[in-house]
Amino acid sequence: MASDRLYFTANEYADRIQAIQKRMNDHGIEVLCMTAPENIFYATGYDGWSFYTHQMAIISLDQKEPIWIGREMDIACAVETTRMPEKDLIGYSDDYVDSTEKHAMEFIAQELTKRGWGSKKIGVESENYFFTARCAEKLTQSLPNATFIDATNLVNWVRLVKSPQEIQYMREAALLADAAMKAGIDAMEPGTRECDVAAAILAAQVKGVGDVFGDPATEILAMPVGQEVNCPHLAWTGRPLANSTPINLELGGVRRRYNSGISRSTHLGKAPDSLKSLASATLEALEVTLDAIKPGLLAEDVFHIYNGALEKYGQHKPSRTGYAIGIGYPPVWIERTVSFFPGDKTVLTENMTFHIMCGMWRDEDGFVESETFRLTDSGVEVFTQYPRGLTEKA
Amino acid sequence: MASDRLYFTANEYADRIQAIQKRMNDHGIEVLCMTAPENIFYATGYDGWSFYTHQMAIISLDQKEPIWIGREMDIACAVETTRMPEKDLIGYSDDYVDSTEKHAMEFIAQELTKRGWGSKKIGVESENYFFTARCAEKLTQSLPNATFIDATNLVNWVRLVKSPQEIQYMREAALLADAAMKAGIDAMEPGTRECDVAAAILAAQVKGVGDVFGDPATEILAMPVGQEVNCPHLAWTGRPLANSTPINLELGGVRRRYNSGISRSTHLGKAPDSLKSLASATLEALEVTLDAIKPGLLAEDVFHIYNGALEKYGQHKPSRTGYAIGIGYPPVWIERTVSFFPGDKTVLTENMTFHIMCGMWRDEDGFVESETFRLTDSGVEVFTQYPRGLTEKA
Repeated sequence: MASDRLYFTANEYADRIQAIQKRMNDHGIEVLCMTAPENIFYATGYDGWSFYTHQMAIISLDQKEPIWIGREMDIACAVETTRMPEKDLIGYSDDYVDSTEKHAMEFIAQELTKRGWGSKKIGVESENYFFTARCAEKLTQSLPNATFIDATNLVNWVRLVKSPQEIQYMREAALLADAAMKAGIDAMEPGTRECDVAAAILAAQVKGVGDVFGDPATEILAMPVGQEVNCPHLAWTGRPLANSTPINLELGGVRRRYNSGISRSTHLGKAPDSLKSLASATLEALEVTLDAIKPGLLAEDVFHIYNGALEKYGQHKPSRTGYAIGIGYPPVWIERTVSFFPGDKTVLTENMTFHIMCGMWRDEDGFVESETFRLTDSGVEVFTQYPRGLTEKA
Repeated sequence: MASDRLYFTANEYADRIQAIQKRMNDHGIEVLCMTAPENIFYATGYDGWSFYTHQMAIISLDQKEPIWIGREMDIACAVETTRMPEKDLIGYSDDYVDSTEKHAMEFIAQELTKRGWGSKKIGVESENYFFTARCAEKLTQSLPNATFIDATNLVNWVRLVKSPQEIQYMREAALLADAAMKAGIDAMEPGTRECDVAAAILAAQVKGVGDVFGDPATEILAMPVGQEVNCPHLAWTGRPLANSTPINLELGGVRRRYNSGISRSTHLGKAPDSLKSLASATLEALEVTLDAIKPGLLAEDVFHIYNGALEKYGQHKPSRTGYAIGIGYPPVWIERTVSFFPGDKTVLTENMTFHIMCGMWRDEDGFVESETFRLTDSGVEVFTQYPRGLTEKA
């Protein structure tokens, strides 16, 4: 193993496995089959970029250590990024890769059976990109005596409250996000191509700040420009920036796979009054909301406080006001547990971490402002520090 | 719509839809539900980065135009990136997003039913990241009168032979890949941090060459260094490069979502003889193989020719020698159809495009060399042009 690829102590991993096993027990699950790369990473440290082929980490109630099953060539990645002994790293050969005749879940089923887990109560992550409809079909067909239980987000809920080391990585991720935001806004000049602004951001995300370098990005840089600022999720083009134009950025810093997201809007030249009004209303509502957040609040309260503060300006954001954030692999840093949205009754507690997303997309324009923060014992610690509000570059 | 986000003529899209409908008909499918972002892009041009929430493009045999269903806020992305009329863009509200009570597939089922498709023969992409086990469960439960047919890779097979415009984009993607490879290798010096080499590559990938700028990367930059070069799929760290060390790079250029991949190995300082021998054997086998590839060959022949040429050097590559490549979204540019692997009897024909992957990973070291090419009428046109072989930087 490479010691600079081990991001947490052995004790912290042991605690995680225990916490997962406790939740498994609560849900009547004896064997948990994790396919979400962020959950595999959380439980084992595995950080190979191999999740495009089928792989799994498995935790059983009857043993302390997880096992990893993946493509043979990627065992080397597990050796470098985890403390797992080689006996717990199982590889399948390439005749399982993109085959129409053999499926990796059949191989995995054999490995489960070998270990006496073939007729257990098995948890699977049904709502996860890396457990496809066919994965479910092949695994269940291959284990006719097992009982399958939906374990979607089981590990995600364990991940919700962060440890001191996790929080430190998210602070560092925010440093990276701030530096990338600054690099992007600094690069924006009339005539500069959008892709050159993007290049400045992508480089800053990984060069980092001092010793804090960045990992591969989780989400793509959203960078709509001009009339497209009403789009939340568009990438850059090669167009030169006009003399007078709005540019929205949503980007993240990633440190040891922990993500902090940030969004800011910029206007080259003098911004129209309508956009300025939207910006100041959004900013006021964001700050009212951040001031109000503290342990004991419900997740849905955040949505209502934010929209309540917008109301006097005749504005409303129908989409969620944010979500739990932490570990991420492409395409997403969202934790899939808590959303700031009506009906989400999760009680907020200390050291939960969120991305509060005040994206206001209207037919004619759009303004974005977002921050990543944690709950403290009495309020919030906002990780992202780039100056708030609309930047006008005259 | 933004004209610089329309990458193909309306005629080319019409041809694609016709080709897909013909294949649907051959497979007894009346309504095709596409969830793979690359297939949605191929059929409609949709290029929003919104696939982390559920979305679908649907093609029915009974109409010429596809429809798109996704999150409400992303309709704006469809307006900018497709020629689809707004009546064919259907959005669901945020109460379907990461909800445990409502599922987007229930909404989609209602829309199918409204259009009279609720009891049709419906094709779904069972082996696709964006059609999870739960998606299948919710869609089938919501459409009890439908007949479901597995349509995994149906559109991927239509994509296999490229049009002149697609080939042009792949040539441009190769320009980007070459430029990024050069930027990376140029940046490698003793003492330079790995992340700074990565930053140079990421910036070059999107700055591009002249007017040819790059899109967001599809796969992450694989960049194992030192003892880790036996790992295919590891990202960079922040370590300074040693005076004498091997570095492997696998990266891609992306142009209008079309990908060309390239891999090269570098050694700072004098390379060990064992690595040099591996490099020259690999290079010779690659060149023998590229010389032999022509229309009429079977996909598996490529594997055997490559390994046959390696044999006299006592080397063997057990994993596939490459695969079809084209459109890609994270995490993968692989087309999932043809693999250069025993048992793949696909007959190679003109204008199929492949990434030939000669990654030789051994316990003690590793050497990588890959190119992206198309079949011509009599041989190959290799898109990637960066000088082949091991680069020794003294």
